[in-house]
Amino acid sequence: MSAEFRIHSTLLDDCHRLGRLQDCHVLLHRDAALHWFILVPETDHTDLLDLPNAARSMCINECAVVSSFLKNNLGYPKVNFASIGNVVPQLHLHVIGRTPSDAVWPAPVWGRLATDHRYDQAQLARLCSELTTAIGLRRVADS
Amino acid sequence: MSAEFRIHSTLLDDCHRLGRLQDCHVLLHRDAALHWFILVPETDHTDLLDLPNAARSMCINECAVVSSFLKNNLGYPKVNFASIGNVVPQLHLHVIGRTPSDAVWPAPVWGRLATDHRYDQAQLARLCSELTTAIGLRRVADS
Repeated sequence: MSAEFRIHSTLLDDCHRLGRLQDCHVLLHRDAALHWFILVPETDHTDLLDLPNAARSMCINECAVVSSFLKNNLGYPKVNFASIGNVVPQLHLHVIGRTPSDAVWPAPVWGRLATDHRYDQAQLARLCSELTTAIGLRRVADS
Repeated sequence: MSAEFRIHSTLLDDCHRLGRLQDCHVLLHRDAALHWFILVPETDHTDLLDLPNAARSMCINECAVVSSFLKNNLGYPKVNFASIGNVVPQLHLHVIGRTPSDAVWPAPVWGRLATDHRYDQAQLARLCSELTTAIGLRRVADS
């Protein structure tokens, strides 16, 4: 459904659009207090656990690749993973680097993380370059 | 590792222990304001996305079965799914029935759901019976 697929406007408001992997679009939450990736598969399903097994595995495998990047390239000791979607119904998967020194540890980030830390363009460019090299991110222009 | 495997004491304090499926122990959060299942696979990994692909798929497939039970048997329109583990390091997977009329909608439940609703023994017995029939839950004595 790629031709007509549109990422929900709330996700685009909240996130930088970095690019895509094979199955999922890759967004990065604008709050730079920690690295909070959001992966968006192109599907009409709204709950991860409702996806057919093969499609679910493909999405989650890409989340696992992003999780490995958070740990191996960015040094996070812990990753939180979730599919919630109570506010934005479009299926989107949270892959969030966590560390005991972060702004809201040990609380989950949703509804709690609201700092004024922002990425600058150089940081975003460097991150995208690292993602391209490490996990094959294909770039798109940031929204 | 079943012989030595112990479910973390905090999970046992917070939950009823209902039984197990093939790969995961099945717990139910004691707050009965909504149905909040917690599945515990027997592994030393602490992050879901670090599990080897086959083990991860098995766990998530069981979460999907519980999600279907929440929707088809208990009537929830929405399921939240997460692996967080910032407080309890033992890997555990949240599979939570959500509805716009619930106590904390649309917020996530973690750190927010704290009602005085509790299951009585008859409710727990009925739920376990339904889980046994619908998804093959094998019973254990509640802790």
